[in-house]
Amino acid sequence: MSILISGSIGIDNIKTPSDFQEGLLGGSVAYASLAASVFANPVHLCGIIGHDFPKAHLDLLESKGITLDALERHSGESFTWTGEYHADMNTRDTLKVGINVLEHWKPSLPGAAAEAPIVVLANASPDNQGQTLDEAKGAKFVAMDTMDLWISIANDRLHEVLKRVDLLVINDGEAREFAGTSNLVEAGRLLREKGPRFVVVKRGEHGSFLFGPGEDEFFSCSAYPLKSVFDPTGAGDSFLGGMAGWLASQGKFDPTFEDLKTAVAYGSVTASFTCEAFSTRKIETVSLVDVETRMSELRKYTSYAG
Amino acid sequence: MSILISGSIGIDNIKTPSDFQEGLLGGSVAYASLAASVFANPVHLCGIIGHDFPKAHLDLLESKGITLDALERHSGESFTWTGEYHADMNTRDTLKVGINVLEHWKPSLPGAAAEAPIVVLANASPDNQGQTLDEAKGAKFVAMDTMDLWISIANDRLHEVLKRVDLLVINDGEAREFAGTSNLVEAGRLLREKGPRFVVVKRGEHGSFLFGPGEDEFFSCSAYPLKSVFDPTGAGDSFLGGMAGWLASQGKFDPTFEDLKTAVAYGSVTASFTCEAFSTRKIETVSLVDVETRMSELRKYTSYAG
Repeated sequence: MSILISGSIGIDNIKTPSDFQEGLLGGSVAYASLAASVFANPVHLCGIIGHDFPKAHLDLLESKGITLDALERHSGESFTWTGEYHADMNTRDTLKVGINVLEHWKPSLPGAAAEAPIVVLANASPDNQGQTLDEAKGAKFVAMDTMDLWISIANDRLHEVLKRVDLLVINDGEAREFAGTSNLVEAGRLLREKGPRFVVVKRGEHGSFLFGPGEDEFFSCSAYPLKSVFDPTGAGDSFLGGMAGWLASQGKFDPTFEDLKTAVAYGSVTASFTCEAFSTRKIETVSLVDVETRMSELRKYTSYAG
Repeated sequence: MSILISGSIGIDNIKTPSDFQEGLLGGSVAYASLAASVFANPVHLCGIIGHDFPKAHLDLLESKGITLDALERHSGESFTWTGEYHADMNTRDTLKVGINVLEHWKPSLPGAAAEAPIVVLANASPDNQGQTLDEAKGAKFVAMDTMDLWISIANDRLHEVLKRVDLLVINDGEAREFAGTSNLVEAGRLLREKGPRFVVVKRGEHGSFLFGPGEDEFFSCSAYPLKSVFDPTGAGDSFLGGMAGWLASQGKFDPTFEDLKTAVAYGSVTASFTCEAFSTRKIETVSLVDVETRMSELRKYTSYAG
C-alpha cells in the first residue's frame, strides 16, 4: 500500500558532545520517509529543496525506494538547521535556522502521490500540513506531528488541522504545553478532544503512550533500551514514519486500537536506530530483519509472569 | 515469610497545589511497611519515634499486622519533614527537616525481627542501614533504597553498604548522579558494579527499569497510569515495600531475575495507590484484591500483538 509523507527537508549541521558534522541530510520528511521505506513502498516524499541541495542525498532517498515525484526543486536556498546537543543528549539548542525555500512553499501533489491512502504530515507549519491534506484526495488515514513553535505561533491553525487527522503524534513536553496539564495521561485525553481519534505521546528514552479512541483504551510502550545515544535528531520523525510504514505494509488504512498498539511498538523500535549515528546514517541502513530482531528483544524486555 | 523493614518514621507536613495538611504519618519505613503488609506478615518495623509521636499512627500500623517490636521509643522529639510540591507534582522543595531522635539512633533488633529472611533497608543514613544489617542475623535477601543526600555526604559509607545488599532501588535522578552518566541503561550497569546483583531504577510516571544479574537481563516496567497525582510522597518507599512484600508472600528469599520482574510490577502497582491521597491514607486501605485488579489492568495496558 502506498504512503505519502510531507514535511521539511534540508541540510543539517549537528554538534554533539563528541563530534560536529555539516551538510547532513535532515528535515522531518527525510527521516520519516526513510523509516517508512523499511516497511512499505512506494513512499511518496512531498517537500521542497533549493539549488544547493546535495544530489547524494537525493540519490540515497531514491535508492531506498522513495519516490520524489512530489519533491519541488526551487532556485532559492534549501532549508537548513544547525543545532547543538547538551551533555545529557536529551536537550538541545537551535543555533541557526535558515527557513529559505520553505517560507513560501505551497505543497502540491502529482497524481500517484495524491492517491496514497495513508498520509503522514510530518512536522511542518500547520498551513503546509493543511495544504497537503487539501491535495491528498486519496487519504484514508492521516497521521501528523507538530512542534512547540507551531503551538506558540500558529495555535489556531494547528487546531484546524487537528480536526482533520486520525492520529496526532507529539512529544511529552509539547503534549503538556499544548494540553495545559503536567499529567501526561490527562494530556492524552485532552488532546484527543481536539480532534484526532488516536494520540501518541512520545517520551524519548521512557517510551510512548497511546490513547483512544475509547476512554479506557490506553497503551504504554517501553522504548528499546540504548546504552548510548549518539544523535537523537529525527528520532521522533522516524517513530512516526515507522508507525505509518508498518500500517501501510499491513494494508491498515482503517486501523483498530490493537493495530495502533503494534504500530507504536514498531515506531518505537524504528526510532531507536536513528539515535545510533549522525543524521540518517543508521536508519538508511536498517532492514526489516533488523527491526524484527529488536521487536523480539523489546518483547522479552517488557514481558513478565504472574 | 516474615520481613524486616528499617528506616525513618516521623511526622510529615505536606503542601500540594490544592491542600496543606500537618501531623501526617511519614517516613520511609512507614510507607514501605504499609505497602509490604498488603502482601505479607509479619512485617517487623525498625525505627525510632519521640514522645510526641501520635498514638493513632501506631494503632494504624498495628491494625495492618505490622509488628512494632523493633520500634524504639525515645524521650526526644520525633523526626519531622515539611515539604511543598510544585504545580507539576514531579518536583518538590523541602521546607523544614527536624532530624531530632534520628540523629543518634542506632538500630537494634529483638529476636523475631532479627530472624526475618527478607530485609528492606528503606531510605536512611548508610550508617543506620549498615547497623540494621549487622543485627539482621537471619537475612537472606536484602534490598535497599537511598537518596541524593547520602550520595552527597556519605558516599563512601553508601558504597560499603551497597556491597552487602542484593537489590538497590533508586530513582532516576539519583541513579544518574550516583553512576555519573545521563544514560539510565548505562547507569543501571554501573550501579550493579558497585555490588548489588539487581538494580531497579524508578522513573516516576514513566515506570521502572530492572537490571541484572546477567549483562543482558533487563526489564522495562510501565507505571500504572494515573489521571491525577494527589501526593506522591512515599511512592518510592511503597514501591520497595510492595516488591519485598510480594517476594515474602511467595517465599522468594533467593529470587531469580524472572521473580524480580514480577516483583517490580507489583511494586509499581502498589506505589500507584500511595499517590492518590495525602500521606499513607490510600495505601493503608488497599487490599490484595485492589492490587490484583490493577495488575490485570497494567497487563492490558502494556500488551500488544505482532
